[in-house]
Amino acid sequence: MNTWGRGIRLSIFGESHGAAVGMVVDGLPAGERIDAEELRREMQRRAPGRDAFSTARREADAAEILSGVKDGRTTGAPICGLIRNGDARSGDYDGSLRPGHADWTALLKYGGHADMRGGGHFSGRLTAPLVFAGAMAKQVLGRLGVGVYGRIVAIGDAADEETPQGELAWRALSGLQFPASAPAAARMRAAAGAARAEGDSVGGIVEVAAFGVPGGVGDPFFASAESVVASLLFSIPAVKGVEFGDGFRLAGMRGSEANDELFVEEGVIRSRTNRNGGILGGITNGMPLIARAACKPTPSIAREQRTVDPADMTETTLAIKGRHDPCIVLRAVPVVEAALALGVLDCILVGRMEAR
Amino acid sequence: MNTWGRGIRLSIFGESHGAAVGMVVDGLPAGERIDAEELRREMQRRAPGRDAFSTARREADAAEILSGVKDGRTTGAPICGLIRNGDARSGDYDGSLRPGHADWTALLKYGGHADMRGGGHFSGRLTAPLVFAGAMAKQVLGRLGVGVYGRIVAIGDAADEETPQGELAWRALSGLQFPASAPAAARMRAAAGAARAEGDSVGGIVEVAAFGVPGGVGDPFFASAESVVASLLFSIPAVKGVEFGDGFRLAGMRGSEANDELFVEEGVIRSRTNRNGGILGGITNGMPLIARAACKPTPSIAREQRTVDPADMTETTLAIKGRHDPCIVLRAVPVVEAALALGVLDCILVGRMEAR
Amino acid sequence: MNTWGRGIRLSIFGESHGAAVGMVVDGLPAGERIDAEELRREMQRRAPGRDAFSTARREADAAEILSGVKDGRTTGAPICGLIRNGDARSGDYDGSLRPGHADWTALLKYGGHADMRGGGHFSGRLTAPLVFAGAMAKQVLGRLGVGVYGRIVAIGDAADEETPQGELAWRALSGLQFPASAPAAARMRAAAGAARAEGDSVGGIVEVAAFGVPGGVGDPFFASAESVVASLLFSIPAVKGVEFGDGFRLAGMRGSEANDELFVEEGVIRSRTNRNGGILGGITNGMPLIARAACKPTPSIAREQRTVDPADMTETTLAIKGRHDPCIVLRAVPVVEAALALGVLDCILVGRMEAR
Amino acid sequence: MNTWGRGIRLSIFGESHGAAVGMVVDGLPAGERIDAEELRREMQRRAPGRDAFSTARREADAAEILSGVKDGRTTGAPICGLIRNGDARSGDYDGSLRPGHADWTALLKYGGHADMRGGGHFSGRLTAPLVFAGAMAKQVLGRLGVGVYGRIVAIGDAADEETPQGELAWRALSGLQFPASAPAAARMRAAAGAARAEGDSVGGIVEVAAFGVPGGVGDPFFASAESVVASLLFSIPAVKGVEFGDGFRLAGMRGSEANDELFVEEGVIRSRTNRNGGILGGITNGMPLIARAACKPTPSIAREQRTVDPADMTETTLAIKGRHDPCIVLRAVPVVEAALALGVLDCILVGRMEAR
Repeated sequence: MNTWGRGIRLSIFGESHGAAVGMVVDGLPAGERIDAEELRREMQRRAPGRDAFSTARREADAAEILSGVKDGRTTGAPICGLIRNGDARSGDYDGSLRPGHADWTALLKYGGHADMRGGGHFSGRLTAPLVFAGAMAKQVLGRLGVGVYGRIVAIGDAADEETPQGELAWRALSGLQFPASAPAAARMRAAAGAARAEGDSVGGIVEVAAFGVPGGVGDPFFASAESVVASLLFSIPAVKGVEFGDGFRLAGMRGSEANDELFVEEGVIRSRTNRNGGILGGITNGMPLIARAACKPTPSIAREQRTVDPADMTETTLAIKGRHDPCIVLRAVPVVEAALALGVLDCILVGRMEAR
Repeated sequence: MNTWGRGIRLSIFGESHGAAVGMVVDGLPAGERIDAEELRREMQRRAPGRDAFSTARREADAAEILSGVKDGRTTGAPICGLIRNGDARSGDYDGSLRPGHADWTALLKYGGHADMRGGGHFSGRLTAPLVFAGAMAKQVLGRLGVGVYGRIVAIGDAADEETPQGELAWRALSGLQFPASAPAAARMRAAAGAARAEGDSVGGIVEVAAFGVPGGVGDPFFASAESVVASLLFSIPAVKGVEFGDGFRLAGMRGSEANDELFVEEGVIRSRTNRNGGILGGITNGMPLIARAACKPTPSIAREQRTVDPADMTETTLAIKGRHDPCIVLRAVPVVEAALALGVLDCILVGRMEAR
Repeated sequence: MNTWGRGIRLSIFGESHGAAVGMVVDGLPAGERIDAEELRREMQRRAPGRDAFSTARREADAAEILSGVKDGRTTGAPICGLIRNGDARSGDYDGSLRPGHADWTALLKYGGHADMRGGGHFSGRLTAPLVFAGAMAKQVLGRLGVGVYGRIVAIGDAADEETPQGELAWRALSGLQFPASAPAAARMRAAAGAARAEGDSVGGIVEVAAFGVPGGVGDPFFASAESVVASLLFSIPAVKGVEFGDGFRLAGMRGSEANDELFVEEGVIRSRTNRNGGILGGITNGMPLIARAACKPTPSIAREQRTVDPADMTETTLAIKGRHDPCIVLRAVPVVEAALALGVLDCILVGRMEAR
Repeated sequence: MNTWGRGIRLSIFGESHGAAVGMVVDGLPAGERIDAEELRREMQRRAPGRDAFSTARREADAAEILSGVKDGRTTGAPICGLIRNGDARSGDYDGSLRPGHADWTALLKYGGHADMRGGGHFSGRLTAPLVFAGAMAKQVLGRLGVGVYGRIVAIGDAADEETPQGELAWRALSGLQFPASAPAAARMRAAAGAARAEGDSVGGIVEVAAFGVPGGVGDPFFASAESVVASLLFSIPAVKGVEFGDGFRLAGMRGSEANDELFVEEGVIRSRTNRNGGILGGITNGMPLIARAACKPTPSIAREQRTVDPADMTETTLAIKGRHDPCIVLRAVPVVEAALALGVLDCILVGRMEAR
């Protein structure tokens, strides 16, 4: 279904080579200032052409707000944001199923009816409205004292060994054009460059953090903060793994190591470590909320792959032409941040219902 | 919120040391046979006392069906299953916050009002109704040709290097009292035993597979098969990481490796590898659906930990008394299977709405 | 589906002649006092045997709270309330479809699988858990300054011409054993008595009012206060019509009559009349919220009716044996109140999310 | 919330004097033909300027489909329909609260932040996207053999005494420019004309029928067919009362009259009368589904009314200038039909999940 959220309600729509992509978001409180310039900046972080490894497609990515905002403030009514598609070249991508793409599953689900030009509704282009909604959520969160930041942890086998400590370090890192420590960034760029040189692509890991999240939001079980955030993270086309805090590394630990010990600081309970990523029992504890998303490599590659032509069910080979990002991890950072921002804001809004 | 699902609707309720735990599940088609003996067997797989590493608490774990089933078949009305609590020792767990537990966050969210005896509503005991619902889902799935299996991939640093190939191998492995290859099982038991000997606990990884899932179910974005299944997996108290297919390992791969190449077998498109875990673009492709869940170590340990007594906000230490599982990974296997079964059944039911 | 609500979440389950009926309600704030005696009183208002016109079936209707309440206060966890079925006589109601009952539609939907003994899941007995949930909602509302009251407007053609003015009058009327003005009550009892004497039944209209509802809750369109409350009112088996304020009478009015003119009283805007029943544009205005529900006559009557035996699809006649209420309108009053209370509380809770 | 539905998911957005109004609908099966000309015709039925009693505002009401439809067929992806606002005169409606309007409640809910120009998000103009979505639902329903029709039952005190019998009669009546029997139509027009002549407005009742609805869709309790349809009908700004079948008239009947007796016709069970409007126990029985909606008079009238200026909380009078519909009942007919069509389609889609 195209709708997400209990406090906020987010719908997205559109196809890569159709008229437009867009979103409707409802539930933001009335009277919130929306900084259009800041929205534009966030959209630019996701836009193609940002560095040497992104597609040449020239998307204006200028989002038009059609409703729900007046004189720069939310009115309380649903907000529709529309991003017209400009440079769409139909005719691309016809014929054989692209391995690793949704071509195959769209065929299974929709018969021949899906509009798969450019990936259609499955395209990474649909993450633009997600970033748009996330950027509004970030502005609301900012006024609640919550900051959301992202960084690249790894591209291929090039990992960043340095972990930022504290909100200032996260903010500085996240603000970089390439949000990784300098030596790691160089190795990551090299990994992406090597993939491109070989007509290939490469995946990576994005880590996001939310500072200032109030303790006590989220729920046990089905609406755990992890469930809420993960359901959005797994909505991002490339994401195949999600972890919170030390995540999969916790599986290898002893309890005495994994349990974050507690102390009191300025009258507030805090934990000495944050291996649980700010969430216990599905509920936030006031420590930074930390999540990681594993992004698979872009499936569109120039190298020849074995596949099937569904028209006659024959096996064939395919070498995808045109320019494609050898690595979408850099562009994925604001998308993963948007998912975290929307998830956290939803938990905060829902939490207001339960206050006495 | 305590309710999950769009096709099926699952609610759970109860506290560890209250009168009962239970669930209400709605949306199962009418006329489905419910094998009570099979339900009992599934409940036993999760029950404590199953091996040397589980708590001595004697839960009958006998579930009473109060509604929605008549003469061994579903009636179409909501099914309530109730599991009375027997051996509840109130008085346990009072005082200081147990590190790694929800004591801290429950205090933040509910003030002093939560019933935290034995972990209360946050207790692993709440996974019993989840297994109960999952066991019914499995029976419905079985008649649709879908089999759901689980195994232990790792406990602590003891990993199982052998991966089962094909449904028969999965079924055999999953049916073992300790579902891991023999040499790995020995190392895993040793790891759990060592943790216990040191008053500590240890985490692990559970992998589950669903064979026979029809292609074309699930949705792009917010109701992706990954989002649906992950939202349930992250409802399980101990789970801090979830991945599908090769998950985090995909982040380190090239596209040419991560893309599953396609071929035709008996008139059906299939992939040579299954690195995407049976899901592309949020929609199933007919290959086995594979998911992994990382379980953190049980937070209840005998070793002394530093913590806080919220009554007077003083720092103190805590050594949790009583017998506690040094490793809940074995008992988590049917819980993770239940989550997968419920997620897959929900996707299948929802998919029926979209058929022409 | 068996689940309702966005702020609170209510599930009901059970069958008339099964083991039990019950409900799970989640989302009530933690720490709310639950007065068990008051719960019992509300349940008694709906219980059979309350007057000469209700069935002789002896339901204890004693509800057991299984979870979510400790030491007389909500814990924040889901609350399960269970009402065991006592005096269930299986064997009743077999064979031909009872006209006006759900026998026919249950057959269409569930095949022969539904448990239709005593009306099964469709029985008016399922309104007991609704009253139980509503009684808890009323207690929470009471502490928010909201009072919910009900009265009988008509039974058959016996209408109450007097309309209570103000909360005190509503409270006094609602507290009567038979909540109607004395002369109307006499005519209403006579109408019910006459129906019974002829082996027949009779319908009626219940009106409910909520005083003290804060202005500004509810939403335009799909979650209008009318939509929220009506969706619950139409869940009550007998209800076939719902109106707010002057409802259908507004259709015959001029705008100059229907528009409630405004004035200022003690610094607050109020309206001189309340023809819109406290709701404009789906949002409450602080005036009393007024709703009416039309209840059809009990379909179970002793008079012979023409019907069909689905076993062999032959036409036949049916005279329903046993004692049946000739009029359920009196017992419906607390049910309609419960629906209003739950609807209003849900709107209030949801409104908290939108506050700045 | 701006989202409705479980099988289909409908979101609406927009303000009367903003850039656009529109909707996103998801869940329609892929491959459904969408007849654009038919869509346009439905939109015209709701458009202003249709007769002497509707506003002069020239809305093109041309809806642009931005996504989800390709080559005249649904793709399975969400469909966004956009209706740009043309002739918007800001500056209207400023100042005092218009009695009977949402001005008052929007102020309570959103503070001064709502965009109330022309009624803003509360405007009847928002019913245009509802009709647009309903028109698509009708096309899908048509191919399932379901026909949806509407008529005017009353305007003010001018009632239509003739009830159409059978689908052909309903179709013929519904297709009229003014869907009422000729003598009633003359009286209704006179009633509207008289109201206008006096600077006033008048309300009315719309009845809608769905023929061919399969038996066995809908659910007991919270998702009863009545609850589903009523929640949409009460989303229509002017609607203050909803009834199914004989509705409020059932309250005055005996059971022997209200119970629809059954017989067998061509191997199918049918009822001799249809006082229950095609629904028993929340589930359809295959008889025509009949619903009525009471529309209050347009609150915008030229006659002077007493009201309050919220800027300084002073009492004042208001005579609303400009041309306003003295009666919106005629334009409401396609809106009420749309609500029924969407409700019925949702029930049908949801019912597919429960089939064995």
